[in-house]
Amino acid sequence: MKLLLIGFGTVGQGLAELLIEKRNTLLEQYKLDIQVVGISDMLKGSLYDAKGLDLDKVLEVAKAGKKISDLPGAFEGDALALIAKARADMMVEATYTDIKTGEPATSHIRAALNKKMHVTTTNKGPTALFLSELNELAKKKGVKFLYEGTVMSGSPMLNLARETLAGCNITQVKGILNGTTNYILTRMEEGLAYEDALKKAQELGYAEAVPDADVLGWDALAKVTIIANAMFGVKAKPDDFPCRGITEITAEAIADAKARGKRFKLIGKVWREGDAVKASVAPEEVDMSHPLAGVMGGTNAITFTTDILGDVTIVGPGAGRSETGYSALIDIIHAGGKR
Amino acid sequence: MKLLLIGFGTVGQGLAELLIEKRNTLLEQYKLDIQVVGISDMLKGSLYDAKGLDLDKVLEVAKAGKKISDLPGAFEGDALALIAKARADMMVEATYTDIKTGEPATSHIRAALNKKMHVTTTNKGPTALFLSELNELAKKKGVKFLYEGTVMSGSPMLNLARETLAGCNITQVKGILNGTTNYILTRMEEGLAYEDALKKAQELGYAEAVPDADVLGWDALAKVTIIANAMFGVKAKPDDFPCRGITEITAEAIADAKARGKRFKLIGKVWREGDAVKASVAPEEVDMSHPLAGVMGGTNAITFTTDILGDVTIVGPGAGRSETGYSALIDIIHAGGKR
Repeated sequence: MKLLLIGFGTVGQGLAELLIEKRNTLLEQYKLDIQVVGISDMLKGSLYDAKGLDLDKVLEVAKAGKKISDLPGAFEGDALALIAKARADMMVEATYTDIKTGEPATSHIRAALNKKMHVTTTNKGPTALFLSELNELAKKKGVKFLYEGTVMSGSPMLNLARETLAGCNITQVKGILNGTTNYILTRMEEGLAYEDALKKAQELGYAEAVPDADVLGWDALAKVTIIANAMFGVKAKPDDFPCRGITEITAEAIADAKARGKRFKLIGKVWREGDAVKASVAPEEVDMSHPLAGVMGGTNAITFTTDILGDVTIVGPGAGRSETGYSALIDIIHAGGKR
Repeated sequence: MKLLLIGFGTVGQGLAELLIEKRNTLLEQYKLDIQVVGISDMLKGSLYDAKGLDLDKVLEVAKAGKKISDLPGAFEGDALALIAKARADMMVEATYTDIKTGEPATSHIRAALNKKMHVTTTNKGPTALFLSELNELAKKKGVKFLYEGTVMSGSPMLNLARETLAGCNITQVKGILNGTTNYILTRMEEGLAYEDALKKAQELGYAEAVPDADVLGWDALAKVTIIANAMFGVKAKPDDFPCRGITEITAEAIADAKARGKRFKLIGKVWREGDAVKASVAPEEVDMSHPLAGVMGGTNAITFTTDILGDVTIVGPGAGRSETGYSALIDIIHAGGKR
């Protein structure tokens, strides 16, 4: 399988490391012989070699902060030019997320699908905004559009719903979808004020300097929108759903909830109500006995409510270099692996 | 797909109900047109019709406590005779569990595999005792031997490990595998003495009159053995691993643990230690911040420790009529469904 990596930051490099580390496993267990033939990154430049790149060398250069286009196989042109030129079976789209426009990722994905490449992305922009269009395009071209990493990073919740809960009717999906806000709420319960907890999260690199996307709930909202479109068959945009973040929760409210055996969590939720599909992001007081209550710090979790099994919950990491790289790997295995 | 149901108690009937209820889903989503052609039950008798039985009618008779062999299509002979006679694609083995001998289930499974039927079982006897032999026989005959329901009932943990965590190296599996003991421990933490909590569990039908298999840890040990054999590639028997139940835990010990922020759980565990695979069942004090600590009452849960993702936990039902029936259904979909 020939692979194209578009975006070679944390996620792209995390995946490249896994491709090296797991080479034997992929060959033996899934009959997958993967060659990365092209890489394009806005800052680091582009490479192309139809016979396969030397990933070890590329990683070494990228980690040293140098341009990968200084290596043999330098390619003149941007990501779209590379997609147009390359012969590849699958593209990994891991550029930065723009939740308003979905660009440039959406253009990359359309171009690759049109060239009949499978696509996996960890990018919430295109999936939250254009999922049904991209699904239809993939179907028309006879290839797969996969996006496991967009919701819970490497914790394979979309796969779990699709493969592992096959035959179940899922009536509600409810979870802790943002690790940064969960970390802040955890520290606030320990006694920190909101501002101090946020500062701590920023120091640790969990929260960005402008933390709006996390603390106002937009990141969770994008994930909720992906779940609604992917699992409940609607064609919704993030703006269609109400969204409230954690900025209005006070230390007093948290202490008060604790005294009543409850705990505040920022909950993203999608559910059926009659024929309608509803969704929301909002802080909720969760009962201490609920599996979501025990999910602390940067961990994410999702509870599926099903017709046959009742509630099934998955708890796992919601971010991280190799974790998010793994989400792309699992999509690659599902697109091309044989068992 | 033509199906044979061996054992028509809670699980067999639960599956039959799902086959009726989910008929359209199975047809539309998985292209699976399932006919039950034969049923054999030690108490209720046997039926066979190569053109397919009327499941609604069979269920009606079985629920009324009558013999199904009073219906048209009565078959003279036991389960083995039916397996020998029937033309079927898959057998569901759901007779009672005998953890010492694995019989009569193991004989049923061998006979079906030899006739090139796929097999799914919810029976811990054959899987804990003879998994590698049955796996090899299935492989030789070119069919599948599946047993999702043996560990966490309908919560698809084996599937999750195999399909959803594809590519991960699982180094430890640790969980709450027995709902009865978990229920008893939950009630003891609320203040009941062991005897009273056990009595309560017996009244609710969670524990049997002779509760040894649950409270001495044998049921969890069978599941641990299945995990070790299925996921860690060993050929072990239940007797190979140390096993301690909950009968020696006092109310004082539970209160003491609680005061230290810990909670007693009966933990089944399989892990790698160098080249060796170890396993055990024993009560453990779990830290309140661990996802397993919040798993209360009859719910089960398993934490997978992986090389890439760290810990991933699944929480779900560990027993129940339709839940266990569903585990057989998911195996049927994986054996015969097309997507």
